[in-house]
Amino acid sequence: MSWSTPLGGGGEFEVLRQVFEQARQKGGVPKPGAVLIGPGDDAAVVEGGWVISTDQMVERVHFRTEWLSYVELGGRAVRAALSDLAAMAAEPVGVLTSIAVREEGGAAVIADLMQGAIETAATFGAQVLGGDLSRLPEGAPLVMDVVALGRTAKPLVRSGAEPGDELFLTGPLGGAAAAVATWEQGREPEPSARSAFVTPTPRTREAQWLAERVDLHAGIDISDGLLSDAGHMSAASGVGIVIDVPAVPRHPVLRDMAAVEADRLALSGGEDYEVLVALPPGAAEEIRELYSEAFGTGLVRVGNVRRGAGVAIRTGDGELSVVNSRTGYNHFR
Amino acid sequence: MSWSTPLGGGGEFEVLRQVFEQARQKGGVPKPGAVLIGPGDDAAVVEGGWVISTDQMVERVHFRTEWLSYVELGGRAVRAALSDLAAMAAEPVGVLTSIAVREEGGAAVIADLMQGAIETAATFGAQVLGGDLSRLPEGAPLVMDVVALGRTAKPLVRSGAEPGDELFLTGPLGGAAAAVATWEQGREPEPSARSAFVTPTPRTREAQWLAERVDLHAGIDISDGLLSDAGHMSAASGVGIVIDVPAVPRHPVLRDMAAVEADRLALSGGEDYEVLVALPPGAAEEIRELYSEAFGTGLVRVGNVRRGAGVAIRTGDGELSVVNSRTGYNHFR
Repeated sequence: MSWSTPLGGGGEFEVLRQVFEQARQKGGVPKPGAVLIGPGDDAAVVEGGWVISTDQMVERVHFRTEWLSYVELGGRAVRAALSDLAAMAAEPVGVLTSIAVREEGGAAVIADLMQGAIETAATFGAQVLGGDLSRLPEGAPLVMDVVALGRTAKPLVRSGAEPGDELFLTGPLGGAAAAVATWEQGREPEPSARSAFVTPTPRTREAQWLAERVDLHAGIDISDGLLSDAGHMSAASGVGIVIDVPAVPRHPVLRDMAAVEADRLALSGGEDYEVLVALPPGAAEEIRELYSEAFGTGLVRVGNVRRGAGVAIRTGDGELSVVNSRTGYNHFR
Repeated sequence: MSWSTPLGGGGEFEVLRQVFEQARQKGGVPKPGAVLIGPGDDAAVVEGGWVISTDQMVERVHFRTEWLSYVELGGRAVRAALSDLAAMAAEPVGVLTSIAVREEGGAAVIADLMQGAIETAATFGAQVLGGDLSRLPEGAPLVMDVVALGRTAKPLVRSGAEPGDELFLTGPLGGAAAAVATWEQGREPEPSARSAFVTPTPRTREAQWLAERVDLHAGIDISDGLLSDAGHMSAASGVGIVIDVPAVPRHPVLRDMAAVEADRLALSGGEDYEVLVALPPGAAEEIRELYSEAFGTGLVRVGNVRRGAGVAIRTGDGELSVVNSRTGYNHFR
């Protein structure tokens, strides 16, 4: 995901918050009038409704080249970047791709990554508008950065959730993390789990569809994991969030797992790129069936917004427990 | 610099050209109506006059941490990225920073890079609008990507140079490359050469000033080196370009060097981030003095545009020799 302030937790985010705060105190941060939404959401928004975000993938950190081809990798980087546009209910227009590859075989790697990027961007109506290329020293991990540029008449933000709102997910969670866990055990994941990691669907169409039909109060894409990203929405909106654990839709591959492992993957897995939206009570009733028909997946109620702060989970027996806001997404690890 | 097609030369650029061409032949590349200028210039331009580009810096390829502090490094990455806006005669509005750092000491490195980025962006009127952070495996080179976002009513492009035009540079060349050469010899460069590398001036104000006063036909920033970037302008405009070697303004540190070394640094050094502009004959006469007064550096005539293709250099004795369009910037190495 792209970083933003204020955030729910995590060491790097605290560092960023302090650096921005120090710069503000020095009085040196301009706020150009053309900037409608600055740092602090899934993407920035400028005049004309242009939405811009950037997303970085590093070899051996976010992926391994044994897991997917370079064409797939280029496509996945674009999908992840476009997800930030979905989180803002924006329509994709273009992407820019910065790629750093090792010298050996570099031209073929660049060609494959770019083929994947161009074709995947096209799938979502976006053109590759530019980029940059660098050679890496021998042995260095490949890095690919994708900038997503989109447009919206009414940006969906993280900060609009209100007490009483209901929370919905645009699709199931845990598939991508299940694939990664399987690879890390030295086995090949089931095809559906592999697809969840390699070709996740950025919910750009779904989010725009929802924005046209209901009063979306807030939204965020689930890149770090549901609890972590709910924490970001909670912090940005100044509200408390309750997640109903049994209600969270799970990827089919989680069905045969032990409950504790399935919960961990669904709540903290990350990289599924579904969108969590906050709606006024009852607002989703009349569109949920249409949503399923249009997109072949459910719009599932997973919790609610309340006064207060932080994220709590409600387990099957109705018990509520607070998720530590600083350790957030590590709770289930 | 940011890549673009069509381009004057270089292996990676040819790879990119082929990938784009194959995608076009498959019919899979959308051209959203809101895109005014797609890949092929220093930056893309979309409706509303928004200009967007991205620029990547890799440790041990573009810089070494022994050469400058992390605060300086963050600032330099922003300066290099903003130079693409200068090449489009655009006003800076925002930047996004993607940073990948090693685990050890990572938080302090991030804080320093971001301090440099925020303060430097502010110097040029731009706000840091977002970004991304990644941890690197041990020993991996630091990578920093900066997206520049700006605005212009009339984008300056590479493709508008016409036979008969005169070519001007916004300032002297060779200082940054001289600093790098000195570091690579294990010595510390003179302060003025070090500054040319560490704090190059993206000519955003100069380019906008010129665009308001004269009919700029074409422009490109000198990130790869004068001959290489002149090759890009030549290819994009479908014209020939002649560079008058003795006329090329040089950084003072080049004065004491052997002529062949000074020529090499001035013509092929790169990373100075001056802008090369093409103007109708005589158009510069009445503004050159004002330019010098306003910016403390000269607007210097360095060549002309003619029918044909490719780049030729005219040496002191008046002899013309053609620069190989494929090896371009290696000519003087």
